[in-house]
Amino acid sequence: MSVAEIISEITRKHSNEPEFIQAVKEVYTSIEDTYEQNPQFKTFSILERLSEPDRIYIFKVPWINDEGKVNVNIGYRVQFNNAIGPYKGGLRFHPSVNLSILKFLAFEQIFKNSLTTLPMGGAKGGSDFNPKGKSDREIMRFCQSFMLELWKVIGSETDIPAGDIGVGTREIGYLFGMYKKLTHTHTGVITGKGLNYGGSLVRPEATGYGGIYFVQEMLKRLGQNIEGKIITVSGFGNVAWGAVKKATQLGAKVVTLSGPDGFIYDKEGINGEKIDFMLKLRASNDDVIEPYVKKFKSATFFEGKKPWEIKCDIALP
Amino acid sequence: MSVAEIISEITRKHSNEPEFIQAVKEVYTSIEDTYEQNPQFKTFSILERLSEPDRIYIFKVPWINDEGKVNVNIGYRVQFNNAIGPYKGGLRFHPSVNLSILKFLAFEQIFKNSLTTLPMGGAKGGSDFNPKGKSDREIMRFCQSFMLELWKVIGSETDIPAGDIGVGTREIGYLFGMYKKLTHTHTGVITGKGLNYGGSLVRPEATGYGGIYFVQEMLKRLGQNIEGKIITVSGFGNVAWGAVKKATQLGAKVVTLSGPDGFIYDKEGINGEKIDFMLKLRASNDDVIEPYVKKFKSATFFEGKKPWEIKCDIALP
Amino acid sequence: MSVAEIISEITRKHSNEPEFIQAVKEVYTSIEDTYEQNPQFKTFSILERLSEPDRIYIFKVPWINDEGKVNVNIGYRVQFNNAIGPYKGGLRFHPSVNLSILKFLAFEQIFKNSLTTLPMGGAKGGSDFNPKGKSDREIMRFCQSFMLELWKVIGSETDIPAGDIGVGTREIGYLFGMYKKLTHTHTGVITGKGLNYGGSLVRPEATGYGGIYFVQEMLKRLGQNIEGKIITVSGFGNVAWGAVKKATQLGAKVVTLSGPDGFIYDKEGINGEKIDFMLKLRASNDDVIEPYVKKFKSATFFEGKKPWEIKCDIALP
Amino acid sequence: MSVAEIISEITRKHSNEPEFIQAVKEVYTSIEDTYEQNPQFKTFSILERLSEPDRIYIFKVPWINDEGKVNVNIGYRVQFNNAIGPYKGGLRFHPSVNLSILKFLAFEQIFKNSLTTLPMGGAKGGSDFNPKGKSDREIMRFCQSFMLELWKVIGSETDIPAGDIGVGTREIGYLFGMYKKLTHTHTGVITGKGLNYGGSLVRPEATGYGGIYFVQEMLKRLGQNIEGKIITVSGFGNVAWGAVKKATQLGAKVVTLSGPDGFIYDKEGINGEKIDFMLKLRASNDDVIEPYVKKFKSATFFEGKKPWEIKCDIALP
Amino acid sequence: MSVAEIISEITRKHSNEPEFIQAVKEVYTSIEDTYEQNPQFKTFSILERLSEPDRIYIFKVPWINDEGKVNVNIGYRVQFNNAIGPYKGGLRFHPSVNLSILKFLAFEQIFKNSLTTLPMGGAKGGSDFNPKGKSDREIMRFCQSFMLELWKVIGSETDIPAGDIGVGTREIGYLFGMYKKLTHTHTGVITGKGLNYGGSLVRPEATGYGGIYFVQEMLKRLGQNIEGKIITVSGFGNVAWGAVKKATQLGAKVVTLSGPDGFIYDKEGINGEKIDFMLKLRASNDDVIEPYVKKFKSATFFEGKKPWEIKCDIALP
Amino acid sequence: MSVAEIISEITRKHSNEPEFIQAVKEVYTSIEDTYEQNPQFKTFSILERLSEPDRIYIFKVPWINDEGKVNVNIGYRVQFNNAIGPYKGGLRFHPSVNLSILKFLAFEQIFKNSLTTLPMGGAKGGSDFNPKGKSDREIMRFCQSFMLELWKVIGSETDIPAGDIGVGTREIGYLFGMYKKLTHTHTGVITGKGLNYGGSLVRPEATGYGGIYFVQEMLKRLGQNIEGKIITVSGFGNVAWGAVKKATQLGAKVVTLSGPDGFIYDKEGINGEKIDFMLKLRASNDDVIEPYVKKFKSATFFEGKKPWEIKCDIALP
Repeated sequence: MSVAEIISEITRKHSNEPEFIQAVKEVYTSIEDTYEQNPQFKTFSILERLSEPDRIYIFKVPWINDEGKVNVNIGYRVQFNNAIGPYKGGLRFHPSVNLSILKFLAFEQIFKNSLTTLPMGGAKGGSDFNPKGKSDREIMRFCQSFMLELWKVIGSETDIPAGDIGVGTREIGYLFGMYKKLTHTHTGVITGKGLNYGGSLVRPEATGYGGIYFVQEMLKRLGQNIEGKIITVSGFGNVAWGAVKKATQLGAKVVTLSGPDGFIYDKEGINGEKIDFMLKLRASNDDVIEPYVKKFKSATFFEGKKPWEIKCDIALP
Repeated sequence: MSVAEIISEITRKHSNEPEFIQAVKEVYTSIEDTYEQNPQFKTFSILERLSEPDRIYIFKVPWINDEGKVNVNIGYRVQFNNAIGPYKGGLRFHPSVNLSILKFLAFEQIFKNSLTTLPMGGAKGGSDFNPKGKSDREIMRFCQSFMLELWKVIGSETDIPAGDIGVGTREIGYLFGMYKKLTHTHTGVITGKGLNYGGSLVRPEATGYGGIYFVQEMLKRLGQNIEGKIITVSGFGNVAWGAVKKATQLGAKVVTLSGPDGFIYDKEGINGEKIDFMLKLRASNDDVIEPYVKKFKSATFFEGKKPWEIKCDIALP
Repeated sequence: MSVAEIISEITRKHSNEPEFIQAVKEVYTSIEDTYEQNPQFKTFSILERLSEPDRIYIFKVPWINDEGKVNVNIGYRVQFNNAIGPYKGGLRFHPSVNLSILKFLAFEQIFKNSLTTLPMGGAKGGSDFNPKGKSDREIMRFCQSFMLELWKVIGSETDIPAGDIGVGTREIGYLFGMYKKLTHTHTGVITGKGLNYGGSLVRPEATGYGGIYFVQEMLKRLGQNIEGKIITVSGFGNVAWGAVKKATQLGAKVVTLSGPDGFIYDKEGINGEKIDFMLKLRASNDDVIEPYVKKFKSATFFEGKKPWEIKCDIALP
Repeated sequence: MSVAEIISEITRKHSNEPEFIQAVKEVYTSIEDTYEQNPQFKTFSILERLSEPDRIYIFKVPWINDEGKVNVNIGYRVQFNNAIGPYKGGLRFHPSVNLSILKFLAFEQIFKNSLTTLPMGGAKGGSDFNPKGKSDREIMRFCQSFMLELWKVIGSETDIPAGDIGVGTREIGYLFGMYKKLTHTHTGVITGKGLNYGGSLVRPEATGYGGIYFVQEMLKRLGQNIEGKIITVSGFGNVAWGAVKKATQLGAKVVTLSGPDGFIYDKEGINGEKIDFMLKLRASNDDVIEPYVKKFKSATFFEGKKPWEIKCDIALP
Repeated sequence: MSVAEIISEITRKHSNEPEFIQAVKEVYTSIEDTYEQNPQFKTFSILERLSEPDRIYIFKVPWINDEGKVNVNIGYRVQFNNAIGPYKGGLRFHPSVNLSILKFLAFEQIFKNSLTTLPMGGAKGGSDFNPKGKSDREIMRFCQSFMLELWKVIGSETDIPAGDIGVGTREIGYLFGMYKKLTHTHTGVITGKGLNYGGSLVRPEATGYGGIYFVQEMLKRLGQNIEGKIITVSGFGNVAWGAVKKATQLGAKVVTLSGPDGFIYDKEGINGEKIDFMLKLRASNDDVIEPYVKKFKSATFFEGKKPWEIKCDIALP
Repeated sequence: MSVAEIISEITRKHSNEPEFIQAVKEVYTSIEDTYEQNPQFKTFSILERLSEPDRIYIFKVPWINDEGKVNVNIGYRVQFNNAIGPYKGGLRFHPSVNLSILKFLAFEQIFKNSLTTLPMGGAKGGSDFNPKGKSDREIMRFCQSFMLELWKVIGSETDIPAGDIGVGTREIGYLFGMYKKLTHTHTGVITGKGLNYGGSLVRPEATGYGGIYFVQEMLKRLGQNIEGKIITVSGFGNVAWGAVKKATQLGAKVVTLSGPDGFIYDKEGINGEKIDFMLKLRASNDDVIEPYVKKFKSATFFEGKKPWEIKCDIALP
């Protein structure tokens, strides 16, 4: 089958999964030339096989809230491909989670992981559980119930989850604690653990730092330097935090952050104690960026807007 | 939540699964009164928990056809509920198979099984694989690949599959053979096996016989007798075969059979060698009932019609 | 070693376990003659081996009460002997539970089970957890945490727990539910389940009925009949309930019941609705027998006394 | 391939296994007609597949004798075929044991078991260990070491060993005890256990009784009766014992027994206390039949002869 | 609860375990201030949970001595805490072993291990078996029987035993050999193995060397140097051996060694061939230090005394 | 027993295994002196135990060829000794494979592995399957069927197969793919994997390079240098390829290669594109060396001869 036929067949089969279809379409279209030049890919139906996950587990996650009511959420683990290494990919706890989104993320994880040149396969999992507004005890009970199903299908050489949206050090702690209780082993089955029980030192900043290092390398290829650049950042979570910190260290000036309520523009740059304040804002779970403006007078608030919707004096060459 | 609210929530959550939503709606509406009279059902969120499967396994089933091409199908096992016994339910191999249909069937299997008063939970599984037109070898290869994923989650006290559409003695044989190869055990993990290696004697006729016994009991309650009744039967597969055989034995006269191409009306009744011919028709895999008319002159063919669409001289009191 | 030497050695080794020492002493003294007459028992150190449990599991059972505080109890399973069949014996949840008491009970269970002539070994388990005054949710959380450790060492052909003091249908339900969740199997791993999910019909009455049947047989050997006898019963729980019911059925007259607060004497006999009231009393969890006197005028209350402390007009020949 | 070609190929492949080749030859030659009449047997290479065991385990069995020296024997388990049920077949401990003999016995066990109409596959195992002249402790140590390798590949639904030459109740006891120790389960993994821990009541006599019942049926087909017949028996072990006992009960007269030293002819018939003496002889482990003549004057000893080498006044019609 | 209340509760619960109570008391009293300053420790009942072992296994260890008699010992494994890594801790074979002592040692092992900053939890195990005076074969049989129970609960990422009193290279060899036999794996499940099959090079001296390095560091903090110091050592086993060797290397002079029979004072220092003689003394299993005096004239024997009971010319500043 | 007696006993026991007997004879004879000087080897029956494999698995490998016919081959795995590390050794697919040859190879593998000073035991396995002339699909089907039996007994800390004759990157790929499918793990269970999914970079050349490095070291000991030497090489597979490449790099001149059809003598040396041509020859699967002569005029073909059968101007000092 041609790439177009394959995409059309996937669209037919998984018509209920728009996010997944889009991801496959983007990836397969971008490799169409290579595919046509390598007939063995066609002979062995590589693309047809690559777009169907090896395995999907969907499970009921019952848990009791602080009022004693039984709640039911849905848990997922999509083990997409382990051709070059154990399944690897995060867990997301967010009401928007569904099979289509997890399949799309797991599919892209195959390439994200393999392009690191490390031997890791692609996977993703999570639940439509919303940790926002839940007490610590409720989150603990949910995580324990979630792991009570997940544990049988993960392992240090099988599938190694990590955190993602809604799954931070606290959740990883509850999940790993339950895994340990179930198996009696203390093993490398999950990444993103707290420092106290085996986590690595710079994990929280890693993604943001990495993004900025990438920008730095790209600029170098263009004969430019990150020093002195003005940068707009979208979001104010872990990734944004690391990016702002590292960009500032390297001499750039970050001037925006954004939340669901809009974005702030700080003409003097976001640095020093402002970066710490940003973390506090996120930890407060209020999920709004506006308080930044109240605290730091150099900033202006653009309600309901995204950083990329305004003109500002930065431009990549 | 009220029954209406629960149904509305399920409809929201699983908007892509019309067959499943319909099944839940029918069952929950029918027990609404009981639900309202038993407040503990609400307290413990029984209906919310009952409509979410315990576990779903979805897996890639690659297999190679006789031309050497790699094909990919999707395999499923929905373990819906094991509150009163191990999961139990058939496997269906048919192009129409998808998650919604299997969830609907597995959900209804909970009640079908529990109403037998035997300790069995509810499950269902299968694949979008189409056995029609496939060679024995292809079916063997598909079944072996399917079991290569399924075996880890079934077991004689865990989950016991059986046949269903597209899964007969031959397929059960390939599936059980592979299970045996994988586990080295010869155990009661699957029902519907051939006589040669542990199957039961009257299984093929069982469903049809049971249906007629049920009719007989219902007539008795009305003070009537099945002897002498004229009966219309829809279909001409295993269930129809057993029903025709038993009804005839009990003195009734069966006058119709139907296929996807229409139905036949045999005014002299379907009996004796006609019943055997019916089995042969089905075994031919042509999936049409018309040849019956050519063979037995007493029959008329109604193309494109269903038996219940014509008037005939039978009526239940 | 002689029986005396063996007992002395056990006393030295387990000096902290008075209940266990007493049990061994009673059993071994009673079989001293047989032991001396069978030199092979000495050659193979049978008594030394019989008084040491095959295996003991002790585990931490953390659970969170309704106020959110973490509590810690100790769980036990003593697998004493499986020479003739899988380990079998109850679970007791009571503050008095400790290793000495469970070893004594498990040791006696060997003989209780083997004397039924059924192939069952001896075991016992439980916790110092006190179910009195705990909410349903707290008991559920405790039972789930308890099973989270126990499940690895039980099984339908390995070790089959049952209920005992503090472990009734409710607790068995929570325990079995968690076992099922952990193993995905619905198997005969525990006895005493509720009727809804696989329990047997007459289990609650079984022990009391059995005791009265035994009395009946003993009387027969003496050429007497239970009919017309006057019987005093101690306690008012499940065992007493069955005993009173069966004794009354067989024509005897039961005249006493007792609680921790004393005993009642009902000169007209405890029968009919009185037996039902007795169950209600127990279910109220108030653990006092006195209300019986308020309800049934024919009865007198003897505060702080045991039934066997008074003279009454019954005497075994 | 034709039957002759198949036998020739097996002879080539397993030229070192004369006993196995002979067994295959006998069986396959006897079914040649059926094979030729059923082309599907050829299509599916049934005979080629049937003569190759599913699996063979060979393992080192080190054990220490009473002088403290380490000995090494070889243990075997041939799991030949489990098409219709779990592998089933005895264990033989005898210096003559080698792979060829065990393959021959396991191959024939397939048919012995399937012809009972019970769902059992065929297997055989054992060791070149010689129990003759070994102390109880040595046999215990050997059996424990043997099971330390065997346990992983047997199971109540996988493979169920039994006794055979050199493996009686004592050895089964040591083997099952070790299995229980290793798995913590008390399950039906082995047959031939002692009465004390789950054995069946009439097992020792079963094979001999069965043989005589078979003779009785054969005679009936010929219109004759076993009563009054004169019977010669070869051997004086468990099988002979049962045969003599049952034949005598049914009114026949058994006149010979044989050992490696020759045979005895007892003109008055072997019955009553003579049968008990026969068991004592065997238990003495001296392995000679001659003492019978010293004890019972009605008997004559034929040194170095087999019962079938002399003329005597019996003849099947 | 306050620290005092917690200790009082532990004392009540485990009144039969004086060594364990003392250990908890010492540790908890020493951290009382920190505990009071960190209210979250109280909220989460950290101390209550930390003083109850996760799991304890107690098992019967039957073994046969060289006279053929069956002996019974008790085996233990206390898995105390795996919060930061797999359980880790030694095995002790000594008649003084009981649950209280092992709980005390396992409890302290938590802190010993975590303070190395390596991710290891705390455990301890052993038996009341006395290796003194036993033959190699008896020790082998005991070790094999011990491992026959232990193997199921240890593993390279679960629990990793090591040697301790009565468990040296020989015992570790027998234990690991049996583990390998049972699991077919050659993995890092035990530390302290012999050099021939995977042990590390300097393990025997490690503990003694470490102690002296610690002394050296402590002296440095006081501005002093170990060179030229006079040191008294208690004991003459592996730890003492390493300490004497390293102290001498670093220029200190060790003047005492002690056994159960008293201690020796060697005014010229214990060095050179004297250190080798010390090892030979220990290996002889006679467990007396006196022969040192006969061999080396510079030494005096103080019968029934401990090194710290006499005055000598050393004093830490 | 003396070495001679041991060899004689092995010869008796395994009279059908000439290759194995020869290997044992060579090894044991070569260490006879050491054996006699170390009486503990005799005491512990070390040689008797070392020459008996720990475990042998023999299994049926059914597979279907491209014509649809069922074929049956025999698979083997000999786990000879894991005293110092997990079993390790190659898999050979060749019609000459039988138990004797695999036992001989596995026995020698013990020493080959231990002499590397790495902690690895000895093993070997394979099948009498002939990959020559089989299609890719047939080889895939055979490999999958082979692994369907092997997977239960290998593991990254148990037994780690590798390639050997007939088992190259392609076969390892099919084997590892099936292992991954069966266990869901991507682990170090097999060596020789392709670069794409975890193989190491220089594996193909490794053996040949190693051989030449060894020659280089040997020459150094003799005060000579490999540079300028003329070298004859036997074979033209992977080992020869690496040897030629490395020898040429180091300045030597390789003048012969050989195939089953004879050998070629290239007076100008085999280097540059000739080495690449050699690989192509091998990949063609024609298994003849003659084409080399047609391609490179400097070479002469010696039909039916081995390189060592002719005189040429090289000689080791």
